[in-house]
Amino acid sequence: MGSGCEGNGDGKEQNMAAWLVSVNTLKIQPYHLPRLGPRDVRVRMKAVGICRSDVHFLKTMRCAHFVVKEPMVIGHECAGVIEEVGSEVKSLAIGDRVALETGMGCSRCRYCKGGRYNLCLEMKSFAAPPVHGSLANQLVHPAELCFKLPDNVSLEEGAMCEPLSVGIHACRRAGVGPETNVLIMGAGPIGLITMLAARAFRAAKIVITDVNDYRLSVAKSLGADEIIRVSSNMEDIDEEVIQIQKTMGADIDITVDCVGFSKTMSTALNATRAGGKVCLVGMGQNELTVPLTPAAAREVDIVGVFRYKDTWPLCIEFLRTGKINVKPLITHRYGFTQNEVEEAFEVSARGRDAIKVMFNL
Amino acid sequence: MGSGCEGNGDGKEQNMAAWLVSVNTLKIQPYHLPRLGPRDVRVRMKAVGICRSDVHFLKTMRCAHFVVKEPMVIGHECAGVIEEVGSEVKSLAIGDRVALETGMGCSRCRYCKGGRYNLCLEMKSFAAPPVHGSLANQLVHPAELCFKLPDNVSLEEGAMCEPLSVGIHACRRAGVGPETNVLIMGAGPIGLITMLAARAFRAAKIVITDVNDYRLSVAKSLGADEIIRVSSNMEDIDEEVIQIQKTMGADIDITVDCVGFSKTMSTALNATRAGGKVCLVGMGQNELTVPLTPAAAREVDIVGVFRYKDTWPLCIEFLRTGKINVKPLITHRYGFTQNEVEEAFEVSARGRDAIKVMFNL
Amino acid sequence: MGSGCEGNGDGKEQNMAAWLVSVNTLKIQPYHLPRLGPRDVRVRMKAVGICRSDVHFLKTMRCAHFVVKEPMVIGHECAGVIEEVGSEVKSLAIGDRVALETGMGCSRCRYCKGGRYNLCLEMKSFAAPPVHGSLANQLVHPAELCFKLPDNVSLEEGAMCEPLSVGIHACRRAGVGPETNVLIMGAGPIGLITMLAARAFRAAKIVITDVNDYRLSVAKSLGADEIIRVSSNMEDIDEEVIQIQKTMGADIDITVDCVGFSKTMSTALNATRAGGKVCLVGMGQNELTVPLTPAAAREVDIVGVFRYKDTWPLCIEFLRTGKINVKPLITHRYGFTQNEVEEAFEVSARGRDAIKVMFNL
Amino acid sequence: MGSGCEGNGDGKEQNMAAWLVSVNTLKIQPYHLPRLGPRDVRVRMKAVGICRSDVHFLKTMRCAHFVVKEPMVIGHECAGVIEEVGSEVKSLAIGDRVALETGMGCSRCRYCKGGRYNLCLEMKSFAAPPVHGSLANQLVHPAELCFKLPDNVSLEEGAMCEPLSVGIHACRRAGVGPETNVLIMGAGPIGLITMLAARAFRAAKIVITDVNDYRLSVAKSLGADEIIRVSSNMEDIDEEVIQIQKTMGADIDITVDCVGFSKTMSTALNATRAGGKVCLVGMGQNELTVPLTPAAAREVDIVGVFRYKDTWPLCIEFLRTGKINVKPLITHRYGFTQNEVEEAFEVSARGRDAIKVMFNL
Repeated sequence: MGSGCEGNGDGKEQNMAAWLVSVNTLKIQPYHLPRLGPRDVRVRMKAVGICRSDVHFLKTMRCAHFVVKEPMVIGHECAGVIEEVGSEVKSLAIGDRVALETGMGCSRCRYCKGGRYNLCLEMKSFAAPPVHGSLANQLVHPAELCFKLPDNVSLEEGAMCEPLSVGIHACRRAGVGPETNVLIMGAGPIGLITMLAARAFRAAKIVITDVNDYRLSVAKSLGADEIIRVSSNMEDIDEEVIQIQKTMGADIDITVDCVGFSKTMSTALNATRAGGKVCLVGMGQNELTVPLTPAAAREVDIVGVFRYKDTWPLCIEFLRTGKINVKPLITHRYGFTQNEVEEAFEVSARGRDAIKVMFNL
Repeated sequence: MGSGCEGNGDGKEQNMAAWLVSVNTLKIQPYHLPRLGPRDVRVRMKAVGICRSDVHFLKTMRCAHFVVKEPMVIGHECAGVIEEVGSEVKSLAIGDRVALETGMGCSRCRYCKGGRYNLCLEMKSFAAPPVHGSLANQLVHPAELCFKLPDNVSLEEGAMCEPLSVGIHACRRAGVGPETNVLIMGAGPIGLITMLAARAFRAAKIVITDVNDYRLSVAKSLGADEIIRVSSNMEDIDEEVIQIQKTMGADIDITVDCVGFSKTMSTALNATRAGGKVCLVGMGQNELTVPLTPAAAREVDIVGVFRYKDTWPLCIEFLRTGKINVKPLITHRYGFTQNEVEEAFEVSARGRDAIKVMFNL
Repeated sequence: MGSGCEGNGDGKEQNMAAWLVSVNTLKIQPYHLPRLGPRDVRVRMKAVGICRSDVHFLKTMRCAHFVVKEPMVIGHECAGVIEEVGSEVKSLAIGDRVALETGMGCSRCRYCKGGRYNLCLEMKSFAAPPVHGSLANQLVHPAELCFKLPDNVSLEEGAMCEPLSVGIHACRRAGVGPETNVLIMGAGPIGLITMLAARAFRAAKIVITDVNDYRLSVAKSLGADEIIRVSSNMEDIDEEVIQIQKTMGADIDITVDCVGFSKTMSTALNATRAGGKVCLVGMGQNELTVPLTPAAAREVDIVGVFRYKDTWPLCIEFLRTGKINVKPLITHRYGFTQNEVEEAFEVSARGRDAIKVMFNL
Repeated sequence: MGSGCEGNGDGKEQNMAAWLVSVNTLKIQPYHLPRLGPRDVRVRMKAVGICRSDVHFLKTMRCAHFVVKEPMVIGHECAGVIEEVGSEVKSLAIGDRVALETGMGCSRCRYCKGGRYNLCLEMKSFAAPPVHGSLANQLVHPAELCFKLPDNVSLEEGAMCEPLSVGIHACRRAGVGPETNVLIMGAGPIGLITMLAARAFRAAKIVITDVNDYRLSVAKSLGADEIIRVSSNMEDIDEEVIQIQKTMGADIDITVDCVGFSKTMSTALNATRAGGKVCLVGMGQNELTVPLTPAAAREVDIVGVFRYKDTWPLCIEFLRTGKINVKPLITHRYGFTQNEVEEAFEVSARGRDAIKVMFNL
């Protein structure tokens, strides 16, 4: 994970990476790789996607509680090919195509021991300062975080394991399954991916909402049972809840809010059946004004998600078997040059018709 | 449960009850009992407590989503002595002292079949209009909702099973046990009772907060490990969270908010450890403004409670074995006359030094 | 459920049923229907399947702990058309095609209140003596146990909801889902149906074993990922475990034993991964000799199933959406005459190429 | 954990340990400590208890699936004082009194990542060959497995954390709490300790059985609600089940079998209520003949336990607060000389009045 230390890499060529140096400024500059440890591998990056949090970092030098104080290599959705393996690595070989899990916990704290390593307070993860990210030609990464891709799963699909992990973790935490009708708020990249994950978890029926018709049409084409155009106006909540419930035509057992505004969470809390769950994935606002008491009085529980845990093998299995197809989400592709990096981030930031923007290195 | 139908009672004396007739007006008036069904019992009420929701009904003719449109008998915390049993009742006999569970579900819906009958949409429960309450000389009630009291549990303690059930249900939903440190927001009747329940569920450590020193001193005397005086000022949250965490001296696994204001829930969400739970019991405000996103990003889940289910046997067991002592909570006692009823509700509404106000009929 | 009381039916024609009168003797004889209660419906039976337990009753007058002491109407897998509805029934109308859930609990005990009504000690269920079964022209049954069939689900499929419920309940109890590889022991009717249920619950991979090649070929054609021919010889266990694990090619998370002999459970316990679950459905032997200690020392848990709870809506949804297709399981059909009833039970008892034998009334 | 490698210790004195060299032969011989790693500590052992598995190793050179092929240091229940800390150790200091958790997982497999590190297939643990045990003057051990003892918890009590962990893990797996009546089969060391753990988990009522009156009297004095003398005769099961259920006087929710014979498990399965749990802790026999089918048909689940996970902090908390008092269990004490070691194992093997035999080094 290149945790801030930049020794001499083993490759003879100079390793280059996309550095976030200041607000709105990314620069492709040399990135000295750390020494390869006995349990590490050196990976030639082949596909790196842009996530909304990358854009957030670029615009503000921060994301959630993370603040970029020193120049940092950006990026964390990635896959590549192994070029070198540490002396103790037995599970991987040179030439293996792998998707990279982004980080790992300390293995000693209550969270790590209790099976929730994503909550580890000492987690080291790509692009969580001071740990560098993965938009680079090469990376040194722990072998245990590199998952081999089957022949029928491409490197781009491998890079998609990261966002897909968010959707899977949300489905697991909310308990999506064949007995649950699922409402998804928001048809952006994470909303769409959560929908694909919910489908793979065999959700009985999926309704998805958004303010944007284009996104909704994509959602429909990707397998949503029903789509609903909603407004961003707080006054429309009651009416929209009625419309949503009517469209579902059955109890809404689980709502996943992939937006995270007062409007969406209020709708989510009111629309979900008594005893159901609302899963908050989107992080639109920090502080939300929501009808928490009536929801609590119907025992509508709220669960949050932070990253993911132990999701890569499942992602790869879903991709291998075709239970999930992420290819239609990749709408834009760029090479790894200064100009292309800048353009790629602009396109991703603009949103509109871009769902997932991918670098091919 | 006297569900609105008032046939001829079987007792020869005239049965009297406290009727909520309009805002701030309770009147002791005749209450014709429904006919005793084969599975019903007729109970001579002996102890009826006043709950905050009773006061709320009195002040506003409504509580939560319930609206009183016709005069309604008030009250729902009660115990009494059986005077008559239906033809099919085998588990109870005349003279048995019983605590009355307040209501029951339809037994047919997904909630009833799934073990969450408290969420049944057709639940019939004391003082949930149009169903009458229990502040009356006599009641006709399903035998299955009447739980026999052991010799060493008084009728007043029996009446306390209802509020105690709220605390027990909260502890169950939040998962209180010997491995959890519990923070309780609010040392009013429900806060205190939740504390007693958490103690019985063997919480490792309990810290309780309130704005009122008297209540905190009661909490301390009833077994809180630590008490903290907090303010109602939103600006003090950060500082208070630090103080609370320091006082706990360990991770706060579960917070039970028995107040239900933006201030208390914000504190609850920020104080609870990653992966912990916040249980919302208090209903101070309908809409709350809270830092939901950062809490979700630490996977602090929010669970609500609505009433209780299958709690009476456990309450009685806790009372019988002395694992819970509710007697110190009963601070005021009144007889069942027009004047005393009025005074009792006034004292209960005023709060201050009154915790539980009890009628002895 | 016709619980033993045989009053005068409302239909003018004489209602006939298949009575189990003594070992190996079934007789079609008049069956007086009980009076229609306000919440009951009268159903014209159209499809009734034969279950292994019916055959067991016929051969021995007993099944599990149930003993037939008085002549009893046999049968419990059924669907029909509503001909009359009680005065309080609103959810159903004359002409509705319905599948019949077999029974219901007392709604008052800890099991009923706790969401496990299948364990109710006072459960009244078809063909659980002294309650009569359902192989009759007409039945009077509680409306809440009659589930309306969508247009695209046939009455025969409706009758299959009962055996399907067993498979679904097993999948629920064992936790089958997209992250579990499932081993099923036995490709008889229940094994096959459990396989279909596991598929609908999105099991990652399903391997099924049997001693019979024909059954295995049916399993394969119905969607098993892999089939394995095993022996009934105890000495072959170690070798077969290796073969099974190799065939799965991954951890076996859940094994469902649909046979229930020492051999199958021993194999199940040894083949399942540490921390996995073995679900015992088959009831081949009462007492089993199995390596329980080594299994416990790997925390392989054993869960049992008794009937099912709240499964009809899910069955119907699976049938409606085509997620489960039970039609290929219906291998034999008979009319409702004395000769055909006898032949049908013989064919069912013989097993061999018969999977599900169905009466069309 | 001294995993087989015996470099030069850092202490100048010669470190001695009790080596299991062949059947029935223990020899105190030099034990070269491994080099102190940066995250290790060197501990001066002060208290080491003898476990039944130690005796089993001594008698047979094997235990469960572990086989001693090379001479191995025996022992695994231990506490001591820190004499040296590795360069990266911050949580501990020289002079700290610590209890030693016995081992740890690989931190990379599904079990470690999923919160069940006790099931890790690469677990390295005291006296699990080829890893050495802890009956030695000094040990080098990972700092993260050394838990500091509060002032009011003695080193002997610290050594008792290991057997206590077994009881706690069983209570956790079975779900012991204030709403469960618990039956414990066997009043040997593990039965007694499980009883103490169940008490600390607030079991409503505890009944314990044994064939030995002395043990039962100890159980009674340590807090069992009721004791029952049973036989080892299979024919007595039905009668004993009736007696046990009558003595409990309520549903038996959980049975913990600390013996592990066909007799005890049969009794356990028959005595436990429908929907209850049987936890198998004892390992008396490998293969058991038990009425598994009737138990499964009442959904009595069987859960096993293997070691424990994340229990030391809770043990220490229970000891610190006096919720558990293990002192009465320590019935014999010995010094660390050849003669005393031999005698101690003899006394422990003989059982009878010895519960826990402890070395003071």
